[in-house]
Amino acid sequence: MAEAMGAAPVATFAEWMGDVQARVERALEHSLPASSHPPQRLHLAIRYAVLGGGKRVRPMLTFAAGEAADAPAERLGAVACAVEMIHAYSLVHDDLPCMDDDVLRRGKPTVHVEFDEATALLVGDALQSAAFEVLTARPLADDAAAHVAMVNTLATASGSRGMAGGQAIDLDAVGRSLTLPELENMHIHKTGALIRASVLLGARCGHLPPPGYERLDRYAKCVGLAFQVVDDVLDAQESTATLGKTAGKDAAQNKPTYVSLLGLDRARDLAEQLRRDAHEAIVGFDERARRLHELADFIVLRKF
Amino acid sequence: MAEAMGAAPVATFAEWMGDVQARVERALEHSLPASSHPPQRLHLAIRYAVLGGGKRVRPMLTFAAGEAADAPAERLGAVACAVEMIHAYSLVHDDLPCMDDDVLRRGKPTVHVEFDEATALLVGDALQSAAFEVLTARPLADDAAAHVAMVNTLATASGSRGMAGGQAIDLDAVGRSLTLPELENMHIHKTGALIRASVLLGARCGHLPPPGYERLDRYAKCVGLAFQVVDDVLDAQESTATLGKTAGKDAAQNKPTYVSLLGLDRARDLAEQLRRDAHEAIVGFDERARRLHELADFIVLRKF
Repeated sequence: MAEAMGAAPVATFAEWMGDVQARVERALEHSLPASSHPPQRLHLAIRYAVLGGGKRVRPMLTFAAGEAADAPAERLGAVACAVEMIHAYSLVHDDLPCMDDDVLRRGKPTVHVEFDEATALLVGDALQSAAFEVLTARPLADDAAAHVAMVNTLATASGSRGMAGGQAIDLDAVGRSLTLPELENMHIHKTGALIRASVLLGARCGHLPPPGYERLDRYAKCVGLAFQVVDDVLDAQESTATLGKTAGKDAAQNKPTYVSLLGLDRARDLAEQLRRDAHEAIVGFDERARRLHELADFIVLRKF
Repeated sequence: MAEAMGAAPVATFAEWMGDVQARVERALEHSLPASSHPPQRLHLAIRYAVLGGGKRVRPMLTFAAGEAADAPAERLGAVACAVEMIHAYSLVHDDLPCMDDDVLRRGKPTVHVEFDEATALLVGDALQSAAFEVLTARPLADDAAAHVAMVNTLATASGSRGMAGGQAIDLDAVGRSLTLPELENMHIHKTGALIRASVLLGARCGHLPPPGYERLDRYAKCVGLAFQVVDDVLDAQESTATLGKTAGKDAAQNKPTYVSLLGLDRARDLAEQLRRDAHEAIVGFDERARRLHELADFIVLRKF
C-alpha cells in the first residue's frame, strides 16, 4: 500500500472506523421510522434490532470500497444502511426458535425474547423491505440504469442463491459432517454473498478503472471467508461475555465449523492466509484503498 | 365504459383472465430457480408456495392497469411476478405457528406443515428478495430513474408502513374490539398497500395522461378495501372446502372483521358501494381500461 501523500493529516484506522460507525448510526436512525410512528410496537422493535449495536463491518466495507472508488459519502450512507438492514433482518430471523433459538445478540436479549416471536418475524420482514426502500430513495449512481443493477445485486445476494440459500444449506448441515469445500460453499452463501455486495455496491457508487471491480470482488471473497473463519475461531475460544452472543453454541449443536474441521491452529493459519490474499487482490490500487487494506487486518486480527 | 371499437374480436373477461393467469404462471415458473438448483429443498418449497395456486388477483390488476396505460406485456409480467412473490411470501409467514398458525392454504398443506417451520421462514425471506430481483432484472420503464422509483414504491408498500405494518396492526387487534376506521386502517396497510402497488406499478410500465395516476390510485384504494370486505363475507359464509383455506377462523380467533362490525348484509352493501366507487374513479378512461372495470366486478362478485 502506498502511503497517502496529501497535506491533510490522515485519520488513524480507529478514527476512521469510529467516524464511519457514527455516520452509519445517524443514517440508520434517520432512515428507520420513529418509534412514535404507528404501528409503534413494530417500529420500536425494528429500532431495537438495528440501532446501537454491532460492529457495522458491512457498512465499513461499503465505505472503504466507496472511498477507493471516489464515491460521494451520502451515496455510501444509503448503501451502508441497506446492507446493514439486510444483515440485521437475517440475525433477527436466525435467532428465532425455529432456527438457532438464541436468546442473546449483541449483548442484549434477542428480538423475540424482548418482544415476541410474531413481532420478530415482522421485524425481519419489514427490515428487508426497508433495505430496498433506502437503496432506492435517492440517486446512487450517475447512471440510473446502473442504480437498478445495484438493486439487483443486493436482491440476488440476499435471496435463495445468496444469504437465504446459505441459511438453508446451514439447516441441512446440522448433525451432518461436511467436507471443507461443503463448509466453504455454505459460508460463501450465508455470509459471503452479502459481504461481497457490501463491497461491490460501495464501489459502484463511484468509479474504478478496470480491472478494479474484478479485483475488489476477489478482495471481498477473501475477506468474507476470513470473517467466517475468524468467527468460528472466536466462537471456539471466547466466553459468552466477551462475544456478546451465546458462545460455543456451534459445537454444542454439532454444527460443522472451520475449527471442528481444521482445529484451532490451522483455522487461524487459514484466516491469516486469506488476509494476505485480500491484500494481494488490491495491490496496485492507489492510496484511497488504504481502508480496504486495514479492514482486512481488522477482520482477521480482532480479538486474537 | 366505452366498448372497444377495434376490428379484432375482444376476448371475454374469463378468456382474458385465463390468459393473464397462464402468462403469470409461466413467468413465475421461469423466474424462480429450478428445484434442481441447490439448495434444492429450499427451491422446492419456494416453488410449492408460489406455483399452481391462487387467483393471481394482484397480477391481474397489474395487467389491467398496464393495458390501460399501453404498457408492454413483458414489463407487466415482471411486475406481476414481483407483486405475486411479495404476496406469496406474506402468506407463508402469516400461516406460521407464531402468526395465524394455519395448516391449509390454497387447498394444500401450508409450507411449514408440508416442509418445516425453518424452511417456511426462509421461503418467505427468499421470496421477498426474489421479488426485488425480478423487478430489477430488465428495464421496466423508458426512463431508468422512473424504474428506481417503481422499486421504491414496492418496497414502501411491503414494509413497516405498508403490508408488514398491517400485519403488526392485525396482531395488536386480536381480542380487542376495533372501530370501523381502525379496521379500515388495518386493511389499508395489510392488503391495500400491495394492491395499490400492483395497480400503480402496472400503469408505470406505460404512460397515462394526467390525472390518470391519481384516478388509478383512487380505483386501487376502492378495490383493495372491497377485496378485504368480500374476503370477510366469504370467510363468514363459506365452508372450508369451497374456500381452500380454513374458514370461520377470524370469528373463532375473535378477530374483528367487516362482518363482525357491520353484519353480513351491510358488509355486502359496503362491497357493492366500493365497486361503484372503483368504476367511478376510472370514468373517462378509454376502452383500454375495460379490464380494470371488469376486475372490480370480479373482485366483488366472486362467490356470492
